[in-house]
Amino acid sequence: MLGNFSYHNPTKLYFGADALQYLREEMKHYGQNVLLVYGGGSVKKNGIYDEITAILKDCGKQTAEIAGVMPNPTAEKLREGIAIARAHKADFILAVGGGSVCDYSKALSVSVHCDDDPWEKYYIRFEEPDCEIVPVGCVLTMAGTGSEMNAGAVITNHDAKLKIGHVFGTPVMPKFSILNPKYTMTLPKYQMTAGIYDIMNHICEQYFSGEDDNTSDYISEGLMRGLIHASRVAVNDPQNYEARSNIMWTATWALNTLVSRGKSTDWMVHMLGQSVGAYTDATHGMTLAAVSLPYYRYIMPYGLKKFARFAKEVWGISAEGKSDQQLAEEGLAAMEAWMRELGLVMKISELGATDDMIEGIADGTIILEGGYHVLNRDEVVQILKASM
Amino acid sequence: MLGNFSYHNPTKLYFGADALQYLREEMKHYGQNVLLVYGGGSVKKNGIYDEITAILKDCGKQTAEIAGVMPNPTAEKLREGIAIARAHKADFILAVGGGSVCDYSKALSVSVHCDDDPWEKYYIRFEEPDCEIVPVGCVLTMAGTGSEMNAGAVITNHDAKLKIGHVFGTPVMPKFSILNPKYTMTLPKYQMTAGIYDIMNHICEQYFSGEDDNTSDYISEGLMRGLIHASRVAVNDPQNYEARSNIMWTATWALNTLVSRGKSTDWMVHMLGQSVGAYTDATHGMTLAAVSLPYYRYIMPYGLKKFARFAKEVWGISAEGKSDQQLAEEGLAAMEAWMRELGLVMKISELGATDDMIEGIADGTIILEGGYHVLNRDEVVQILKASM
Repeated sequence: MLGNFSYHNPTKLYFGADALQYLREEMKHYGQNVLLVYGGGSVKKNGIYDEITAILKDCGKQTAEIAGVMPNPTAEKLREGIAIARAHKADFILAVGGGSVCDYSKALSVSVHCDDDPWEKYYIRFEEPDCEIVPVGCVLTMAGTGSEMNAGAVITNHDAKLKIGHVFGTPVMPKFSILNPKYTMTLPKYQMTAGIYDIMNHICEQYFSGEDDNTSDYISEGLMRGLIHASRVAVNDPQNYEARSNIMWTATWALNTLVSRGKSTDWMVHMLGQSVGAYTDATHGMTLAAVSLPYYRYIMPYGLKKFARFAKEVWGISAEGKSDQQLAEEGLAAMEAWMRELGLVMKISELGATDDMIEGIADGTIILEGGYHVLNRDEVVQILKASM
Repeated sequence: MLGNFSYHNPTKLYFGADALQYLREEMKHYGQNVLLVYGGGSVKKNGIYDEITAILKDCGKQTAEIAGVMPNPTAEKLREGIAIARAHKADFILAVGGGSVCDYSKALSVSVHCDDDPWEKYYIRFEEPDCEIVPVGCVLTMAGTGSEMNAGAVITNHDAKLKIGHVFGTPVMPKFSILNPKYTMTLPKYQMTAGIYDIMNHICEQYFSGEDDNTSDYISEGLMRGLIHASRVAVNDPQNYEARSNIMWTATWALNTLVSRGKSTDWMVHMLGQSVGAYTDATHGMTLAAVSLPYYRYIMPYGLKKFARFAKEVWGISAEGKSDQQLAEEGLAAMEAWMRELGLVMKISELGATDDMIEGIADGTIILEGGYHVLNRDEVVQILKASM
């Protein structure tokens, strides 16, 4: 672990089939006016909405709702939410859904008492909140983003064709999150596998950086090995509670800052994928899948040792008699085979990207500098074309 | 991840060669009367004491001291500390040292405002605190126990020949801990390797339980692999900052409840080792080392699959053409070889245990039920004799 860093992650996690029972006790710590935030309405079909509204009523809360938070939550939806939150004088924001709903709720939490336009302030100027922050809690219904235990919030602006993430400070982290794996088990396979790939890629974004010996990399390797195993069970048997619960727990630990301690981190697959998402509104995990192999194959020579290690430690590939080059290639081939087993989308053209979008997607791709090779714009275009 | 569990770990960690700079800012959150707790005085030789007292003075704190906290802190020392804390009206307890000093400070924190005798209340009756708890912070100078990010405190009563741990609730966790790997680099080799083995065994105590597929096990395997690698570097080159920093970070994550989520956990090596410690006052990590192999070889048949997995995933032993029995044996042999590389004490007789102590040590060994086989007293005696 080289360098200096801090780690502070105070979110309280309740995990398991009975975890919702702790909502009542937690809500006692907050004021009366609760804003219930959710997505498309699946929470009304699977009974979660009814359970939660009953608990809130029983706790004496006055609840207002923001429904319809879309999978790539928009700046426009954020502004609508601010008006509702202000009218309700929200004391607490309860997110019930997946990463989109949790992210949206965090973005809302720093916007309610903020005079500036939140898109401009947080997503263009990247300023930090200097206003009161409304506390947030999550009841998670989808595993993938890690939003339940981090301070990140990704918002999309379709007019500008931008999809941008801001990682806020500790006060924006959810105060508590309720993780019941059963809630994730009604998801369609497409969303389940997209979430699984999001988890894998979160870990890769942190792992594929740096050349020092780093505890974070060993933890990452463990998480990836567990995820690969559980994903194979889940794809064949989505109702397997053990597999789904391991996936849910891994998602949280993949992106709560633990495995980035001492790491420069890459994040270019996300930058490329998010820009694809801004143009196509495609499912986040699938945008990542579709750009990953072209990106990793392109940068592999610059981080050959780590890719060789990835092959051995994560995919169990024997190193005997092989060069690092060979091993590294076999590792990426193993990941590709796994991605195809999961049925992930492997081409951005299948997500709606067209040739005439490439330049615009490249314009919207933020260039970061922590990975093994810093891309220039031509290389971004090249990778996007290879992803078509 | 089967079962229901919660995870809440709000300790703020500052890591690195410059981490002490954050002490000033942290101390602003607490009252004026600080109790500075330390051990034998090495902190006065290596400059840490001077740095910290200067910071506290500069922050306007009134500091009283409890010096001489011994490696196995005693109930007697605790009572002395209570008197000092009460006289000083301590607002905050700053532990500067290793696990003993941190543990002691936590035990003190729940005793200052408690009317009952703390040994009786917390270590015999295992009650929880119902009094005001004085906040604690740690500046860690030794890596091993994980005390810097957990709510545990082990206290020894030499008259009763008992050494017992109590895991308190979240309010007893340190508010912050400062982890500068350089502070650990002046330790004698004996303490360094004892600390390394303590870390390894913490992970084993949690890993060697249960038969489900569990994310915690994969994380544990990663931590163990990283530790084994770093320990080999450190034994040859104790001044290697990278290796010592990885060891320090691994120690924290080995025992902060993360890798016990969803696990029943074993802890019998600690129960045996602590009882040996109560009789011999030996270094904690060495008591664990001296009883480990007899214990693990004894219970191996009851958890054969996990021991076989341990051999493959932690020690990199090829499974080809081998039975689980063979693999399991090779794994323990690999751990034994590593322990001998580190120069650990492998016999309790070398720590001062004598044949006439065996029955007493067995009496003091708490029997826990989470491992692969619950020992009866005869088996405890047998294992202790095999450890001589």
